[in-house]
Amino acid sequence: MILEEMIEAARGGRTIDLLLRNCKLVIVLSGEIYETDIGIWNGRVIGFGSYKAKEEIDLEGMYVAPGFFDGHAHLESTMLMPSEFAKAVLPHGTTSVIFDPHEIANVLGLEGIRYVLETTENLPLNVFLVLPSCIPATELETSGARLLAHDLEIFKDEERVLGLAEIMNYPGVIYNNPEVIEKLKVFFGKVIDGHAPGLTGKELMAYAVTGIGSDHECTTLEEAEEKLRLGMHIIIREGTTAKNHDELIKLASKHPTSRIFFCTDDKQPDDIEETGHIDHIVRKAIASGVNPITAYQMASINPATYFKLSWKFGSISPGRRADILALDDLKKVSIRKVFVKGQLVAEDGEVIPGVIKPTTFPIRGTINVAWLYKEDFKIRAKGRYINIIEVIPEQVITKKRVEEAKVENGYAVSDTERDILKVAVIERHMASGRIGLGFVRGFGLKSGAIASSVAHDSHNIIVIGTNDDDMLLAAVKIVKMQGGQVVVSNGEIIETFPLPIAGLISDRPYDEVKSACKRIREAAYRIGSKLKDPFMNMSFLALAVIPEIKITDKGIVYVNKFEFIPLFTGEKNE
Amino acid sequence: MILEEMIEAARGGRTIDLLLRNCKLVIVLSGEIYETDIGIWNGRVIGFGSYKAKEEIDLEGMYVAPGFFDGHAHLESTMLMPSEFAKAVLPHGTTSVIFDPHEIANVLGLEGIRYVLETTENLPLNVFLVLPSCIPATELETSGARLLAHDLEIFKDEERVLGLAEIMNYPGVIYNNPEVIEKLKVFFGKVIDGHAPGLTGKELMAYAVTGIGSDHECTTLEEAEEKLRLGMHIIIREGTTAKNHDELIKLASKHPTSRIFFCTDDKQPDDIEETGHIDHIVRKAIASGVNPITAYQMASINPATYFKLSWKFGSISPGRRADILALDDLKKVSIRKVFVKGQLVAEDGEVIPGVIKPTTFPIRGTINVAWLYKEDFKIRAKGRYINIIEVIPEQVITKKRVEEAKVENGYAVSDTERDILKVAVIERHMASGRIGLGFVRGFGLKSGAIASSVAHDSHNIIVIGTNDDDMLLAAVKIVKMQGGQVVVSNGEIIETFPLPIAGLISDRPYDEVKSACKRIREAAYRIGSKLKDPFMNMSFLALAVIPEIKITDKGIVYVNKFEFIPLFTGEKNE
Repeated sequence: MILEEMIEAARGGRTIDLLLRNCKLVIVLSGEIYETDIGIWNGRVIGFGSYKAKEEIDLEGMYVAPGFFDGHAHLESTMLMPSEFAKAVLPHGTTSVIFDPHEIANVLGLEGIRYVLETTENLPLNVFLVLPSCIPATELETSGARLLAHDLEIFKDEERVLGLAEIMNYPGVIYNNPEVIEKLKVFFGKVIDGHAPGLTGKELMAYAVTGIGSDHECTTLEEAEEKLRLGMHIIIREGTTAKNHDELIKLASKHPTSRIFFCTDDKQPDDIEETGHIDHIVRKAIASGVNPITAYQMASINPATYFKLSWKFGSISPGRRADILALDDLKKVSIRKVFVKGQLVAEDGEVIPGVIKPTTFPIRGTINVAWLYKEDFKIRAKGRYINIIEVIPEQVITKKRVEEAKVENGYAVSDTERDILKVAVIERHMASGRIGLGFVRGFGLKSGAIASSVAHDSHNIIVIGTNDDDMLLAAVKIVKMQGGQVVVSNGEIIETFPLPIAGLISDRPYDEVKSACKRIREAAYRIGSKLKDPFMNMSFLALAVIPEIKITDKGIVYVNKFEFIPLFTGEKNE
Repeated sequence: MILEEMIEAARGGRTIDLLLRNCKLVIVLSGEIYETDIGIWNGRVIGFGSYKAKEEIDLEGMYVAPGFFDGHAHLESTMLMPSEFAKAVLPHGTTSVIFDPHEIANVLGLEGIRYVLETTENLPLNVFLVLPSCIPATELETSGARLLAHDLEIFKDEERVLGLAEIMNYPGVIYNNPEVIEKLKVFFGKVIDGHAPGLTGKELMAYAVTGIGSDHECTTLEEAEEKLRLGMHIIIREGTTAKNHDELIKLASKHPTSRIFFCTDDKQPDDIEETGHIDHIVRKAIASGVNPITAYQMASINPATYFKLSWKFGSISPGRRADILALDDLKKVSIRKVFVKGQLVAEDGEVIPGVIKPTTFPIRGTINVAWLYKEDFKIRAKGRYINIIEVIPEQVITKKRVEEAKVENGYAVSDTERDILKVAVIERHMASGRIGLGFVRGFGLKSGAIASSVAHDSHNIIVIGTNDDDMLLAAVKIVKMQGGQVVVSNGEIIETFPLPIAGLISDRPYDEVKSACKRIREAAYRIGSKLKDPFMNMSFLALAVIPEIKITDKGIVYVNKFEFIPLFTGEKNE
């Protein structure tokens, strides 16, 4: 009887739940600001104008806009449980988010997807999923799962599953990898998101022809324009590391904006607190000259339309979900109140106590490592020169360099003077005992070691250290914690940040996670880290799809050729 | 293997079917004109730029735009079979049409819907259906079918069935008519089109809250703006009778246009030839100041997006259907070539011979009338004054008047001097013998009678005449033809226009139908018709949902009160 009752409510035939009075409503559908009262019944907007309501809130002329969409995000990058993620983003006006559970699925497979689906079911935040399309990311590493088309199909008809997430394996699309093609076929007609940085010309045509409908990896205006012309929606990303707003917002002055929207992709919890979430991007867009109503459209109705959700989300209009922001200032995006399903969930930057009820969903431990010995970390010297990885601060790419090895007693060891440190990647999914060993430059540690179970995309344990004892201690601590991050110095554990959920996500509240993030970073500074975010840089050392040289549990990968190379090399200038 | 082959084609790895060279491509997605070549393989656009192709067509710098959508049309109003409809509209650039088979379903029920679905399957025209939602239109007449939610559900999962057509019964929505509500529930989440002329305020809220997503009945800017704000897409209609472009195009300068598009609704075949189809509306929009690219968007990607078809239709981009127009002049919309599925189907105003293969789909005869006698048309005089229907030229509404009856031998008869003519509506679906009798002013016939089996919405036989003999002859001829239109004078049939398909549609070619339309009209002029289109006006005399006074097989309807009134009335000025 809901429909009949909703109609009756809209017509004024019954007392409604809530009337928001004196609103300056941002109508994203008609592109205008309209002064009215807004009627809400049973979580839906039912009409504008005067209604008899159980409760009235006088918004005293505040602006009112639809809740924001994050068009592509990885929960795991926030290290927060879904309930804590909701606490973090709701005060910033994000009421809908499209999660790609790529990281947790690399570790836990289908169970990881189910974890995200089930723990988000009853949140006052609309969580939709696109299914991770590339697990494992490469054959050059050991992941916790392999998901084929028929695995993903299990979730295809779930109400909150919209389609397929970022197809990173673009060579697989373009050159007809059967596993990739099968996934495209199974999800044909559903949402299929793209991920094709720098792809252009005929190869981009071959990628676009499959129905892949979006891209969030553009870094230049020209790249985004080319993709827009080919039918792809452009998702402007502004995360903790990748920041594309300043370049891509130029699109808005040159093209229709209805196929452009926003995402964070990867954003850390302390960064969310400091800068904001989608509100931050809306603010930047307006500051750079975009018409405010257009900016609000890009954060609401545009993604809702792309994801085929506009009949229920993305605008404040009859029948749509009452996901509503009340703002003091439209241009500054100063959010005073946030309503989800007609319920006040956040006010003045804080979530209303009690509105978020955490869901427990027990998942198995994921750190499955054979017994570790100090000898596992030793590297017998087999030549004078070594291929080393050089990190670039705050970037995901690395450079391949050749340096002379420091050799002691026939073993290659870390050299703090030249900042060439040993790095180990320990397979942690199936206790294979596999360890990849190499050297990295740029971390600057003077003593001790750092370790983490967050290491894209397979999330094996990664350790960087000045000596084998501390590396062993750090790795063993990760195993004992069943995942997390650790800083060790001179045989002592000086800081830990447990991430017991898949070795990726904390089980602690948002406030604790934010401070843990800072504490573990500061501990790394104390042992000499020159990098602003050493754990972030370390987590990408194993990402064997991004140039130029990476390390996995299987060895050192020269990404430009997608092949393994030996640590020791004949010549300095090979 | 199609997807793999399409990818290979897009990448340049195989010879494609067709390359359109030297195009000024109107990219509706990015809102710009872009000079390029366009590659086509297997009916799809696969990419831009140079490709090795079996065939090349040099378009020598012509503009190239996506084929047009008619967002809401009744095939029956054209009186053309689908194959002939395609011949009529393809040269005008309409490559996709959304049919609402409302008329034929009123006569034939599910069989009528199946007729339209099956005869459009293999046309070089993309035909989609929305299912008629209000059959019968009212309880005040006898229709050939009654379609409930579970009947319509049969077609719900057909690939080309998009949802539910114009919900005309808006009182039924607003005041919870169970049959209407059940239909809304069954089709919830699919396309549901609206039809709510003049509806406003709370009643419009109650209508919009159900998820009804469009309206094509707006007549004023204010009305359209109100509906746009409430989440309804505005379909600007420009048909043979209802012409809303000039008023509604004002929307385009005040609001975002992405939720606005075009339709013809009801357009007669000779009118299509003379003025055009969707091209006519695009031309008018540009002439009234709309940016040409915006006008082309309103005719292509906007409806494609609303109908959730944009992944395959509505733009020229990789993976989309190669439905392409080549134009000499963008502003004049002078269409030189029309491609559907990559095949040239029309050129310089003519369909390419052989591209349209008519589908035969036998359906039963629909004129089921009991034996008719002259006495059936007689009206025994029961008073001095009668309620008469006054027509308004080229309008659908009528006015109720009271006049003195002309009485001969105790019977009320037609009075050509005062232009008060007898009108009869003969039930033709189930041979009930039911005849509604009344009088009408405004047709101006001086002798004979006219009759038609086209009489909205139930399409019973309607006859207007100066004497009972000719009325009988005209009606009997309709029965013998199994539907159509006829003009009779002094005991002779002077013109006929057979419509054997449901009594609504001709089985003859487009050219013949156009001239038959003119001939039958001209025959009516010869017996005195003062109306420009007497058959059109006559067809709306039975439409008991449009004010003010109408006649059905059940009697005279005072529409403003939705009730029957007697022919004879006590006073002139009651």
